[in-house]
Amino acid sequence: MESAIPEHLRTTRTRHRRIPDDYAPPYPSFVARHKPGVARVVMAYFGVQARDASSKAAGEALAWITTCFESDAGPTHWDRARYIDEAGFSNIVTVAYWDDRAKFDGWFPTARDGWTGDRRALDGVGTFIEVLYPSVEGYETLFSSLGRPEGIAVLADGMSGEVQEHAYWGGMRDRIPLSQTSELAPAGAARAIRDGARIRVIPHDNLCLIRSGQDWVDTEASERNMYLGDVEPVLREGMDFLRDEGRSIGCYANRYMTVTAPDGRPIEKSYGMSWWKSLAALERWAESHPTHVRIFGAAMKYLSTLGPAAKLRLYHEVTVARTDEAFFEYFDCHPQTGMLNAVQRADTA
Amino acid sequence: MESAIPEHLRTTRTRHRRIPDDYAPPYPSFVARHKPGVARVVMAYFGVQARDASSKAAGEALAWITTCFESDAGPTHWDRARYIDEAGFSNIVTVAYWDDRAKFDGWFPTARDGWTGDRRALDGVGTFIEVLYPSVEGYETLFSSLGRPEGIAVLADGMSGEVQEHAYWGGMRDRIPLSQTSELAPAGAARAIRDGARIRVIPHDNLCLIRSGQDWVDTEASERNMYLGDVEPVLREGMDFLRDEGRSIGCYANRYMTVTAPDGRPIEKSYGMSWWKSLAALERWAESHPTHVRIFGAAMKYLSTLGPAAKLRLYHEVTVARTDEAFFEYFDCHPQTGMLNAVQRADTA
Repeated sequence: MESAIPEHLRTTRTRHRRIPDDYAPPYPSFVARHKPGVARVVMAYFGVQARDASSKAAGEALAWITTCFESDAGPTHWDRARYIDEAGFSNIVTVAYWDDRAKFDGWFPTARDGWTGDRRALDGVGTFIEVLYPSVEGYETLFSSLGRPEGIAVLADGMSGEVQEHAYWGGMRDRIPLSQTSELAPAGAARAIRDGARIRVIPHDNLCLIRSGQDWVDTEASERNMYLGDVEPVLREGMDFLRDEGRSIGCYANRYMTVTAPDGRPIEKSYGMSWWKSLAALERWAESHPTHVRIFGAAMKYLSTLGPAAKLRLYHEVTVARTDEAFFEYFDCHPQTGMLNAVQRADTA
Repeated sequence: MESAIPEHLRTTRTRHRRIPDDYAPPYPSFVARHKPGVARVVMAYFGVQARDASSKAAGEALAWITTCFESDAGPTHWDRARYIDEAGFSNIVTVAYWDDRAKFDGWFPTARDGWTGDRRALDGVGTFIEVLYPSVEGYETLFSSLGRPEGIAVLADGMSGEVQEHAYWGGMRDRIPLSQTSELAPAGAARAIRDGARIRVIPHDNLCLIRSGQDWVDTEASERNMYLGDVEPVLREGMDFLRDEGRSIGCYANRYMTVTAPDGRPIEKSYGMSWWKSLAALERWAESHPTHVRIFGAAMKYLSTLGPAAKLRLYHEVTVARTDEAFFEYFDCHPQTGMLNAVQRADTA
């Protein structure tokens, strides 16, 4: 048993964990471990928004960003997924990961210019960029099994052994190294800067992002039926609540995404990604909303019972970012897109 | 909105609450407020254990302790309840409350002597005494409604306004004043001292007691059906788990009690009382055991929806006690009785 916080990120605490030192979780979970030399990572979401996801314009946009990724300074890993949003638009989101901020900074200007900027040549689609570049103290991961990393964990040096800080409410916070000394409270106000069809959003401090995924590729008959019949509908209900009513509880936006193969066809993986006013708001929803409480209860029971025999894979990554660790830009997107929900009006640049 | 911790018990924190300062609970709850002059209270459980609860010996025992209560130094409030334990015995438990330790200390020796001590004249029944006398920093209460205090709250000067620290996991801990500076971790080991048929248990530090009650006296048709049909069976399942399997998770004993009227007939109130190795162990069970998670989820939904219209009343009191704030004595009780479960063997006095 080891701490989710690696040795080199441990510091003198001013804030306590929620569990006693002898706490033993009821089932195993694991976290991604970067090399100690990694100080900061980049999680960059490139979105295409269109009435018709199979349109020529959408296809060209996806092909263009894919080409950008292939440059030397491109991401170490990326994946693509889609969903239909509350306004009826298809959103195809390509998420790219770096563990070298300087490399990203060298790569990004061209991609930004072509996606939401001055040299934009993507007609007929809305586009957006949502990027966090947190220090390694500012985020955490969690995996129910080994062998198939997702998201930022694909870039890691490897996975931990069984960690202690999980399977209780508050584990998410306790796994973030900054929680050793910070409440991670939001500060300031998000604001928007409008420049024609392009809107930049400057978020408040300690904005929170969660990407939380499911992978049922390996499940067989009975487990697959259980996931699709019992778990997924409850998960979907929770995702719909956040999408439609999340604003009232501090969730700016939620996307329940279906992961796609390179040819665009759906594969048996999904993830929810949501932007939150604070880690605390995410905690309150997770702990008290009936749909998520049921999901948590089901997962506890499921993983405690099946243990390593479970073929369903669950993971998430949760980040708390400072204002200067985030970049948001929306071009010709509808007003309920992502972090546009966090601002009341857009100042003209 | 006010803190559950009254002004005069607030201190410079070394440990944080689990919620941000702007947290707003989804429904109201209230706590008991003692006069600032009250420094310590006494919660004394006097149990009778018999194969036949209606036996002459059991009746005589109950009459005897009732007479003791009527003396000038007797408790300010008491109630009586019963349950059938895991070994098939009826246990009739009379709980008495004082808010003056000196008064209790003057009263107790005679009651102890007659109940479990040298002048014991109660033939044919087992008897036990389980007492905590915590400082007001060492316990908390919570009520879903005003107007009918129970337990220690009957002795209070009154009830608070709506408090902030509730309706989230960790609220129980955050309401205990000592949590401002202490982890409330258990320390040391419980031990037993045997003296013939009488066994004294000296608990470890920071033993935890919860009394958690339900009162459906005022409910009408549909709400009553919902409580008895949907909530109570789930509650009972959780209570049965703690009674039968609690030892594995740090619950020494659990009694799911039916409150009785002075004539011994059951009334529409019940409570669970359980002894725990630590507050942390109680937290873990409450947060992760499917039956309690379902109870919490149901209560959240129920109280958020009905609000003040709910006629079901819920309350609890939770205490963390030092070794020198507790007294346990068992006379001719079976080995699975109460805190006898906390000790492996009894040393001979």
